[in-house]
Amino acid sequence: MNKPTAQSEFETPKVTTGPLPASRKVYTHPKADPSLSVPRRVIDLHPSANEDPVPVYDTSGPYSDPSVSIDVEKGLARHRTEWVLERGNVETYEGRTVRPEDNGGATGKYLAREFPTKHKPLRGLPGKPVTQYEFARAGIITKEMIYVAERENIGRQAQLDSAADTIAQGESFGAEIPAFITPEFVRDEIARGRAIIPSNINHPELEPQIIGRNFLVKINANIGNSAVASSVEEEVEKLVWATRWGADNVMDLSTGRNIHNTREWIIRNSPVPIGTVPIYQALEKVNGVAEDLTWEVYRDTLIEQCEQGVDYFTIHAGVRLAYIHLTADRVTGIVSRGGSIMAKWCLAHHEESFLYTHFEDICDIMRAYDVSFSLGDGLRPGSIADANDAAQFAELETLGELTKIAHAKGCQVMIEGPGHVPMHKIKVNMDKQLRECGEAPFYTLGPLTTDIAPGYDHITSGIGAAMIGWFGTAMLCYVTPKEHLGLPDRDDVKVGVITYKLAAHAADLAKGHPAAQIRDDALSRARFEFRWEDQFNLSLDPETARQFHDQTLPKDAHKVAHFCSMCGPKFCSMKITAEVRDYADGLSDNEKADLQKQADEARKGMEEKSKEYEALGRKLYVEHST
Amino acid sequence: MNKPTAQSEFETPKVTTGPLPASRKVYTHPKADPSLSVPRRVIDLHPSANEDPVPVYDTSGPYSDPSVSIDVEKGLARHRTEWVLERGNVETYEGRTVRPEDNGGATGKYLAREFPTKHKPLRGLPGKPVTQYEFARAGIITKEMIYVAERENIGRQAQLDSAADTIAQGESFGAEIPAFITPEFVRDEIARGRAIIPSNINHPELEPQIIGRNFLVKINANIGNSAVASSVEEEVEKLVWATRWGADNVMDLSTGRNIHNTREWIIRNSPVPIGTVPIYQALEKVNGVAEDLTWEVYRDTLIEQCEQGVDYFTIHAGVRLAYIHLTADRVTGIVSRGGSIMAKWCLAHHEESFLYTHFEDICDIMRAYDVSFSLGDGLRPGSIADANDAAQFAELETLGELTKIAHAKGCQVMIEGPGHVPMHKIKVNMDKQLRECGEAPFYTLGPLTTDIAPGYDHITSGIGAAMIGWFGTAMLCYVTPKEHLGLPDRDDVKVGVITYKLAAHAADLAKGHPAAQIRDDALSRARFEFRWEDQFNLSLDPETARQFHDQTLPKDAHKVAHFCSMCGPKFCSMKITAEVRDYADGLSDNEKADLQKQADEARKGMEEKSKEYEALGRKLYVEHST
Repeated sequence: MNKPTAQSEFETPKVTTGPLPASRKVYTHPKADPSLSVPRRVIDLHPSANEDPVPVYDTSGPYSDPSVSIDVEKGLARHRTEWVLERGNVETYEGRTVRPEDNGGATGKYLAREFPTKHKPLRGLPGKPVTQYEFARAGIITKEMIYVAERENIGRQAQLDSAADTIAQGESFGAEIPAFITPEFVRDEIARGRAIIPSNINHPELEPQIIGRNFLVKINANIGNSAVASSVEEEVEKLVWATRWGADNVMDLSTGRNIHNTREWIIRNSPVPIGTVPIYQALEKVNGVAEDLTWEVYRDTLIEQCEQGVDYFTIHAGVRLAYIHLTADRVTGIVSRGGSIMAKWCLAHHEESFLYTHFEDICDIMRAYDVSFSLGDGLRPGSIADANDAAQFAELETLGELTKIAHAKGCQVMIEGPGHVPMHKIKVNMDKQLRECGEAPFYTLGPLTTDIAPGYDHITSGIGAAMIGWFGTAMLCYVTPKEHLGLPDRDDVKVGVITYKLAAHAADLAKGHPAAQIRDDALSRARFEFRWEDQFNLSLDPETARQFHDQTLPKDAHKVAHFCSMCGPKFCSMKITAEVRDYADGLSDNEKADLQKQADEARKGMEEKSKEYEALGRKLYVEHST
Repeated sequence: MNKPTAQSEFETPKVTTGPLPASRKVYTHPKADPSLSVPRRVIDLHPSANEDPVPVYDTSGPYSDPSVSIDVEKGLARHRTEWVLERGNVETYEGRTVRPEDNGGATGKYLAREFPTKHKPLRGLPGKPVTQYEFARAGIITKEMIYVAERENIGRQAQLDSAADTIAQGESFGAEIPAFITPEFVRDEIARGRAIIPSNINHPELEPQIIGRNFLVKINANIGNSAVASSVEEEVEKLVWATRWGADNVMDLSTGRNIHNTREWIIRNSPVPIGTVPIYQALEKVNGVAEDLTWEVYRDTLIEQCEQGVDYFTIHAGVRLAYIHLTADRVTGIVSRGGSIMAKWCLAHHEESFLYTHFEDICDIMRAYDVSFSLGDGLRPGSIADANDAAQFAELETLGELTKIAHAKGCQVMIEGPGHVPMHKIKVNMDKQLRECGEAPFYTLGPLTTDIAPGYDHITSGIGAAMIGWFGTAMLCYVTPKEHLGLPDRDDVKVGVITYKLAAHAADLAKGHPAAQIRDDALSRARFEFRWEDQFNLSLDPETARQFHDQTLPKDAHKVAHFCSMCGPKFCSMKITAEVRDYADGLSDNEKADLQKQADEARKGMEEKSKEYEALGRKLYVEHST
């Protein structure tokens, strides 16, 4: 049984567990398959509220469930293996042998510990459906599809059942968001290439979720050990920490040594899809010399990661030889790491990128494990000046073309997007992506709407993220306050996740997701009724909300007080509204009409006077002009 | 001579002085009146950049000028008195006597110190132009107009003179932004009611600035002592601190005791316009009992504040008796403090608001001192659920009607806006304001785009602020991380100001302000060339940028290193771009055409293959479907 870990108790290899304040983990069982247990978090309100608990989407996995015993040495329960096996079309095999270069040649005490258990990998058989896309195209609804439908529907049934005067309004810009999500709707969206469920058959610890513009906007957090090695336990805690605050997906961008072993710990302990950029590890295998990269090294790395259970790969196959010179006049050239690696390789060999020439081979490998494509934007703009330029759009057109190949090969696909884009160019970029890529899900970093605020780029990009999420982006890759400056620490990760969670939610509201506003309304009612505890508990970051309140009014009594620090106890605007309600209740329709009549008359009087004054003024101005 | 004050040395009554890093204060002298000295800040770059210093808009006043001796006991130089006197139409008079109730009856050691010097107030004469609006209508260009034109033009001449391949692009949504701003353009915008220069004739310490949608987007920071009294020196430092980071305007929202004396210290030391909500002080004069308010008490308060030099008043004259019941069904009722006070008064007396019935008297008073109207949105939505509702829009229509009266009476006017508005309702709100109020400047708080992130409401609102600024709002009222939770401290004020500065800048970029992108480009070049010091110095918050960088790479040598913490020294994407440039330089046009040809051919091959695979796949899916 888990208890919440206080900051003071925290030490590796512990990970943060326990529920969020006033929260319980609840599992529901979809009608289409009651054997499935789909998690949600419900937030209990103060009895005085006389309101039902508020259900919210929960990305935190078993870590926030006190009834689950967590042991990172064992990893999470592998419940999805059964789902994969029962639909068949896969084989178990020995798998690739781990080689020293997989961990950058680390040995002895420098070699990260191996994950204690070795699981044999599964692999799809040729000529039979393996991926979610293939099942969807074959008209087959998988358990993953049923699971994500249930998960997306949180709050929707209640919304449909209610008198629903809070029914969602919104402007969806052509998205087709249903009032209720059926498994068949999920299947259809996947079959049309408009949504993906990243779910490697070798990642059975996964709680599946769906990415597509007709579903809730998702967010991604990046973790990774970077040049300075961190311990494997720290990496697992980074994952747990990011998902605790709302990361729907996590990318492991590790470089340097111990990449393989670290990744194994992460995946075995991850309830969310894990993405990687395989070229990073391939580059390590050739000692960081981009021109020494080969298709064979890359292919080997893909298989290594497919067998481990990575759910999606960033593949910069759109960085083609012919586009590289288009970046020469940019203010900030090529800022994508993967894009630069491939540009360097193309120039050194004066050859077309092997990611492009071997694209079909890559599809065949990824299909066999159902690893989703995240087609990388290696030529994304790194500054406002470079936004929506020829290089960026040439690559995007190629990504559209590659999307078709990958679909034809049976793979799930999403498309990565920028970067730095001023507000007036965001929709142009979004619309072009939808058009070029046949509505395949867009997955954008920000975009940052100005370059002048390093230290605040979670905000410059949060603005762009909310907007592009509204316009149709399916997943937002977070940016932390340390962007451009340094490596994010624990607090930065949390601030980045919360910022992107609020941006995604703002987008959901604006798109008109049917149940999105339930939480806003519950929190606003709590605020209005001075239920301080409920206000904290309903917020994205209850800890910070409480801490900020306590800095001004620390006493416990203040949390039930019917006033706040802004106006003090003597006068309170919210109190007055209660009186307004009593007054309005007492007004008859006749009295209301009378009020309006008097108001209109006064208004007419005002208008006449304004004409008189205007005439007087005109005289004055004319007299004084030269 | 001022030196930068380190945090450690800071103690009252010191205020923060000294230039920002690598920055110099420069004064330019407009052609139309070379006697005027208009400030800007120039940021010097490292010699290796081989670039001109970057000029930026400077709100910090003399505090950042080391050649000016600052003494808060004396106040700032009263340079604008001469401008007012030389155009005449004003008289000096004794002014109202300060009464104990002006300071909430504070006595002895509880009474805040009086400002040492007493200046006799000026007052406009009837029948002659006094306000900027009246002069503009009379075709007269004032020194204030020349001053703000020069100030707005920073960077524009250089932009016009340059080859200008960075010429501004943008979508202005009907705003008419000129390439260069002439004093005549300023006059015309003011005469049309589309812009204001808040500039009480009794605030001669002011460095004038202009608020209107065809000018740079401005921001406002709120300060105020609230219920717990803070010292007058602390209040002055709050002002200095907010303007140091970029606040164009400051509102003093003090309540409780010592309001009068505190305000005097603030105005005498303020280079930026000061706004207030006079009903707050009027309420204190009747011991916080809203129903005891009278026109006489309010009128007396207006005159008191006009004589002190307040530049704009929030007046909630649109909260009419007939609209109050429209708020009864709201989730969060009336959340504006001023709006609630007036609602309470109207209900208690069952009478039309005295702010509405005495609106012409208010105009006459404000005109005599050129205090600008900020017509308050007392019925603004306090939650997503209440956005753009009947109460809000009824009030907005009334504000439009009052705008006409105030203009006809010779006053400058801006209009306050919400509040909490989801993204898809922001433009609707903006467009209605432009229509109802004849394009009078809109001045909005945020808006917050979701209710669920207390502790992060600078961000939820920064998203809305950037968007509404783009759509046409002229000034953005900041929101700090403490919004809804507590009183902002020094750090919160800075975070709020920087957040709004970046939101305003994102709006300027998107609107296509001709010189807005100069700073982004300079910073991006510095980033790309690893000029770390330049990157810090060009950013909105150099201190935080440097501090974040140093947390990962603290050594001084790292600030000249050609790598950053993200990729480490072994591989760097930005280095590769230098190679790309060399390569592109070596390509002939024929070679480029050849590259494109090869690319097109490969593409065609890919397309054919995708069709083949698609056909194969279709067979597969059909076989497996049931």
